[in-house]
Amino acid sequence: MSDLDHLFERIVAGEIPSHKVYENELVYAFLDINPLSRGHTLVIPKTRYERIDQLPPETAAALGRALPTVAAAVMKATGTTAYNVLCNTGRPAGQLIPHVHFHIIPKHADGSGLPHNWPAAPIDKDDAPALCQAIVDAMPTA
Amino acid sequence: MSDLDHLFERIVAGEIPSHKVYENELVYAFLDINPLSRGHTLVIPKTRYERIDQLPPETAAALGRALPTVAAAVMKATGTTAYNVLCNTGRPAGQLIPHVHFHIIPKHADGSGLPHNWPAAPIDKDDAPALCQAIVDAMPTA
Repeated sequence: MSDLDHLFERIVAGEIPSHKVYENELVYAFLDINPLSRGHTLVIPKTRYERIDQLPPETAAALGRALPTVAAAVMKATGTTAYNVLCNTGRPAGQLIPHVHFHIIPKHADGSGLPHNWPAAPIDKDDAPALCQAIVDAMPTA
Repeated sequence: MSDLDHLFERIVAGEIPSHKVYENELVYAFLDINPLSRGHTLVIPKTRYERIDQLPPETAAALGRALPTVAAAVMKATGTTAYNVLCNTGRPAGQLIPHVHFHIIPKHADGSGLPHNWPAAPIDKDDAPALCQAIVDAMPTA
């Protein structure tokens, strides 16, 4: 583990300063110091979990509940209405800090924000039913 | 309002078929028919809210709670470990259907998935304290 792995825990603990915008029992939100656009904010669980799929239900719910609150404030403060909420999981998906973080990225009138690149293609209709069933079968039991 | 505006409500109601992978009282998840990669899944509230910042707390929490469950199953079924969770809000941010939807997009070994394009720049240190305070001041009261 590098120091970077624990960066967000140190921010939550106040050992490293941050521009905090929101905090509750389970969640902490602060400005990204390398923003894609003005107002780019990170919403994280105070406890470090590397991946979304490792979050306990209460923490996942708390993050979900915090997103509308923080997003509304970021939009109001930056005068924007469009934004992307993004959580990258795993290095190949762009995750650098192994501590779950939801980016709230305002899309400004000048185009700054998350670049939109969406090379979608129609679903493979022969594969879709089996794929769907495989996901259902893989669902964790409650 | 076009028919597209209500597409997801019609899917939830079963009027339009979908490859459903998960459902509970408040949340519905199904395969995107125009996927960025195999296993690309949408997680939506059953009731239509256009924007994350309009979600009632219970619905936002239910979506947050569903993400780890659905993501874990999608990863297991597709044999991937990296993925992006993304919610586009507003047309300039890439939202086409005005009904909140979280994309779960597996990142496969062949590179398919959400393209990574991250033109970040260091935060404006002169602006950051006032921006942070403006967001705090804009926070909705509980």
